[in-house]
Amino acid sequence: MTRADNHHAWRHLVDAAELTRFTVEALRAAGAPPHDARVTAEVLVAADLGGVESHGVARLRRYVEGLHSGAINPHAVPEVVSDRDSVCVVDAHNGLGQPALCTAVDLAVERARRFGTSAVMVRRSNHMGIAGWFAERAARAGMLALVSTNAVPQVAPMGTNEPMFGTNPFCYALPTPGGTLCFDGATSTVSRGKLEQLDRLGGPMRPGWALGPDGQPTTDIPETVQGLIHRKGYALLPLGGGESDHGGHKGSALSLFIELLCGPLAGAQWSRHTYQDGEGGLGHFVFCLALDALGDADAIRAGVDGLAHEVREGAPVDPAHPVRLPGDRRRRLTAERTADGIPVLESVLADLDDIAAFVGIDPVRGQTCVL
Amino acid sequence: MTRADNHHAWRHLVDAAELTRFTVEALRAAGAPPHDARVTAEVLVAADLGGVESHGVARLRRYVEGLHSGAINPHAVPEVVSDRDSVCVVDAHNGLGQPALCTAVDLAVERARRFGTSAVMVRRSNHMGIAGWFAERAARAGMLALVSTNAVPQVAPMGTNEPMFGTNPFCYALPTPGGTLCFDGATSTVSRGKLEQLDRLGGPMRPGWALGPDGQPTTDIPETVQGLIHRKGYALLPLGGGESDHGGHKGSALSLFIELLCGPLAGAQWSRHTYQDGEGGLGHFVFCLALDALGDADAIRAGVDGLAHEVREGAPVDPAHPVRLPGDRRRRLTAERTADGIPVLESVLADLDDIAAFVGIDPVRGQTCVL
Repeated sequence: MTRADNHHAWRHLVDAAELTRFTVEALRAAGAPPHDARVTAEVLVAADLGGVESHGVARLRRYVEGLHSGAINPHAVPEVVSDRDSVCVVDAHNGLGQPALCTAVDLAVERARRFGTSAVMVRRSNHMGIAGWFAERAARAGMLALVSTNAVPQVAPMGTNEPMFGTNPFCYALPTPGGTLCFDGATSTVSRGKLEQLDRLGGPMRPGWALGPDGQPTTDIPETVQGLIHRKGYALLPLGGGESDHGGHKGSALSLFIELLCGPLAGAQWSRHTYQDGEGGLGHFVFCLALDALGDADAIRAGVDGLAHEVREGAPVDPAHPVRLPGDRRRRLTAERTADGIPVLESVLADLDDIAAFVGIDPVRGQTCVL
Repeated sequence: MTRADNHHAWRHLVDAAELTRFTVEALRAAGAPPHDARVTAEVLVAADLGGVESHGVARLRRYVEGLHSGAINPHAVPEVVSDRDSVCVVDAHNGLGQPALCTAVDLAVERARRFGTSAVMVRRSNHMGIAGWFAERAARAGMLALVSTNAVPQVAPMGTNEPMFGTNPFCYALPTPGGTLCFDGATSTVSRGKLEQLDRLGGPMRPGWALGPDGQPTTDIPETVQGLIHRKGYALLPLGGGESDHGGHKGSALSLFIELLCGPLAGAQWSRHTYQDGEGGLGHFVFCLALDALGDADAIRAGVDGLAHEVREGAPVDPAHPVRLPGDRRRRLTAERTADGIPVLESVLADLDDIAAFVGIDPVRGQTCVL
């Protein structure tokens, strides 16, 4: 198949409820208990609804295979192993990341309601999907929330070409009268998911995104994607790139902040040592600040709304593109796709059909279309 | 004076204690009470000691003039106006930013010791120097601390060319066995202070740092510096620059996070509306997480130290430059300059002499040298 064909690959529109039904059944069949399957499916489908396909059902296979092989423990129950007023630590016991982090978020919300602020760390966890889902859950409960995770080592800290850090998202959310304002983005300049997407679409890749195994900048997408997947010494660069002139030391420091929290402070592995000894060993964290502990909650909401309004009204650089705030695109896509269905690539649907056959459930029912 | 002359301008080595003595006396003479003068001087001299000259005594004039004219209230006493367990709000009553934020940090430390985490916001404040000084103060008390402030509007959010955000530092610190690990950097790609420094040294300026009043990228340093100072429609770009391909939307979202906290959440102005109606109206915030609330503090410290050690041992991109961690350079310079004296530019010393004559105190005693 040529790249041009690939770009126009057949897609299928799948109803969100149907995609959720399928994902829950697949996870159940692989051994996950009902609640864990439901939470994990919600997080995955939320990514597809919001246009973050790299973190959606395209990743279902690794969860199903992980549960099936025991690399992810289907019987794990997240356990609060340390509890000190506004600070708790949750041990995920090598279970699915989503239910463990969901437990942590709900605990963080409860503690922030009691004390005003809270921090809950998660250790011995696995991949947990999009951080934004969790931050938005806390925001709906009246919180300013900060959520992150470490990950497989792919990012070179400033000054070295060794991939040591994860893509460690910086993610926050808070409620506004116009809906939840939520930002969720990797602290590398681009994520591997974005490179994979560009690889499918035919590029281009820009200098300042990644280094080859020789430590030199590379712009070869297929090689970089494969080099990252197979850990052949390729490295993504932190936000700002590899030069301090463009602020690479700042992106690196931001990523380090998340490494410290999700690694040693959570009692988890830091990214460089994740996925060793047969388990992920990931760490996550949640910070919450209860907005009503700050004083007049209505005045705060009005102030946030005013700021958001003024930024959106800023003179656009490109008149065809009004200024957007974090989460605007995701909210718009979610509304559209909830109404019209979620576009799923031919290749992803084929993968889901494989999974259906593997675990013995009904395949996804969708409507074929060209988008 | 040519640029080459300027580059080799005479400098003076001034003992840190003498520079502190001078700064305290100047602030006292301008009306600040002893404690406020002492804290403000410590923060300013710490910047000069650590190599952040843009935030050191080169800024003393604006404090002295502000106190003298009443634009900064010398009689202000920071007041806790809201107190809800781990969350407090401090009104600086338009006094000096340093004593107000110092009050907030000490309160945040006390509350995090009681509850595990804390958040203290400051409203109606003024410029407070380097955020790192405050984060390090909390780190020495056993905290992971996050400190920031908003500022005069100079940064264009992603998608617009209007300067609306401050350079809003992202700043954190935590204790490690090898000393405090502290990062403190503007969330714009470069700060105006860095541009001013390059202007003195003769450039170069890189694309992706700033926009001219026409919304187009500019690399004219003198014009950009003057355009920013006199608010002629020039704007700095967020970390990642003006294009989402390089992650500019991420830097913009990071800056927005700080705007929200220091503006509406603190009950302060957001950057766009600071310095109106005769006062700064700035906001700051402090988050603290008491490390010993997480469990085994020794294990955490060892984990942090191990991570720092491994990153420093990473294969360097340039063999002449081993990998550094945030704060390494500042700590080294502080040790050197504490021992040998602080190099002060001829032009800055002339400014301090002017201040001495204006408020009627002894001038700075230094030793002239060529560096």
